[in-house]
Amino acid sequence: MRYFIQLSFDGTAYHGWQIQPNGVSVQETLQKALSTLLRQPIEVVGAGRTDAGVHARMMVAHFDLPLTPSQGGDLVYKLNKLLPRDIAVQRAWPVPDDMHARFSATSRTYHYYIHTRKDPFLRDRSWLVTFPLDFDRMNEAASRLLQFEDFTSFSKVNTDTKTNLCHITEARWNDVTPPWEGQGGGRWMFTITANRFLRNMVRAIVGTLVEVGRGRMTVDEFCRVVERKDRCSAGESVPAHGLFLENVEYGAIGTETAN
Amino acid sequence: MRYFIQLSFDGTAYHGWQIQPNGVSVQETLQKALSTLLRQPIEVVGAGRTDAGVHARMMVAHFDLPLTPSQGGDLVYKLNKLLPRDIAVQRAWPVPDDMHARFSATSRTYHYYIHTRKDPFLRDRSWLVTFPLDFDRMNEAASRLLQFEDFTSFSKVNTDTKTNLCHITEARWNDVTPPWEGQGGGRWMFTITANRFLRNMVRAIVGTLVEVGRGRMTVDEFCRVVERKDRCSAGESVPAHGLFLENVEYGAIGTETAN
Repeated sequence: MRYFIQLSFDGTAYHGWQIQPNGVSVQETLQKALSTLLRQPIEVVGAGRTDAGVHARMMVAHFDLPLTPSQGGDLVYKLNKLLPRDIAVQRAWPVPDDMHARFSATSRTYHYYIHTRKDPFLRDRSWLVTFPLDFDRMNEAASRLLQFEDFTSFSKVNTDTKTNLCHITEARWNDVTPPWEGQGGGRWMFTITANRFLRNMVRAIVGTLVEVGRGRMTVDEFCRVVERKDRCSAGESVPAHGLFLENVEYGAIGTETAN
Repeated sequence: MRYFIQLSFDGTAYHGWQIQPNGVSVQETLQKALSTLLRQPIEVVGAGRTDAGVHARMMVAHFDLPLTPSQGGDLVYKLNKLLPRDIAVQRAWPVPDDMHARFSATSRTYHYYIHTRKDPFLRDRSWLVTFPLDFDRMNEAASRLLQFEDFTSFSKVNTDTKTNLCHITEARWNDVTPPWEGQGGGRWMFTITANRFLRNMVRAIVGTLVEVGRGRMTVDEFCRVVERKDRCSAGESVPAHGLFLENVEYGAIGTETAN
């Protein structure tokens, strides 16, 4: 029997999602808690890997159990008691055996946060930027991303992926400054949705958009960076702590008949 | 020359505002940064003390300088560079010599946060409550607080304050659940404003309101707790990490003429 599990985590203390030889990962922490609770070794497969320090408001993973667990509805409650305070499980539910947390996912959405005034409550959840940024131009460049399919320029070299093709369906910056913040308290959120992402891709895209925003690169130059398919021409990756995996979608099961 | 300084801090790592023999305080950290920057020993006086683990979105303090500092407008910028990431200064400005961060303050506002579902991003900034609470009854009890003046019941014993009289002008719970949180994701914020607060008062009031909310105390019994002027009849103090000093007000300087 296969189960999906939905969780959120503050990535500050973890070496990313994926199990690592040195350093505690979210996957390892979740597997240990599940194995303790279900009294058998459990392996989980995540919807994707997140780097060290990256957060998730919604991660999905799957695991298999030979038998229906006796815990039933208690599983989520007991798991949350067992897991540390920086990981929380929202739900767990049975799925068909051919559903796969990674391969069945049809889209992922990430958010990247920037704030412009030192704030003790945002320090591990948003990147503090003190140079001026032109978000209109960054949005102009971001919208161009939807024209491209090959994102080699924003990928880590030497990864084991077979293709660097991604279908980006949304990429934009929004002003998310709360009303009580006065002048100079600008907060921005970048939303990007695609069927898949390459390693380091969001942080490299944001880093290159920031080059546009500070006037070091034009929107046309930004497009040429993508076309060049060469990681060296893109901007530097922005810090991990501003990045959140926000949503993972699994398309409708079965086929819908169009009228 | 006297200056006011406005700051915010994440209290998680601090033993409160006030300088302590054991443990790092916010006051000490601020004084060290100011003394380094202004090259003379600086003492700051805060608008009030906050306990270990309590946060501040707005704390105000004053300090005196024999001469106008040469830094001018740079002071805030340089101070933020020098201070750790969990303390931020918003502004500093000169005030008349008889203004006092503590004694001139006319009101303080605190917020206390409760959330009802484990959330990795709220763990140090809100109290996780998993038993059901009736916030309507808690609001009914909270509104009664405005009838009373003596809050001995909610004060730490053996403090050096001369009176336990406070004038509470606002005390209510609001549902602050963000729209994207589904069923069961209740988040609540208690707002309380008074001319002054006794030590531990907000956390003792919230703890006693929670007794009302879980049906262990009626609204009338809550009123009798206040009337009894005895700390032992009140509920337990709630955890520090849900509490924020939110605002400090200084009345208008001079007299306004009413028409």
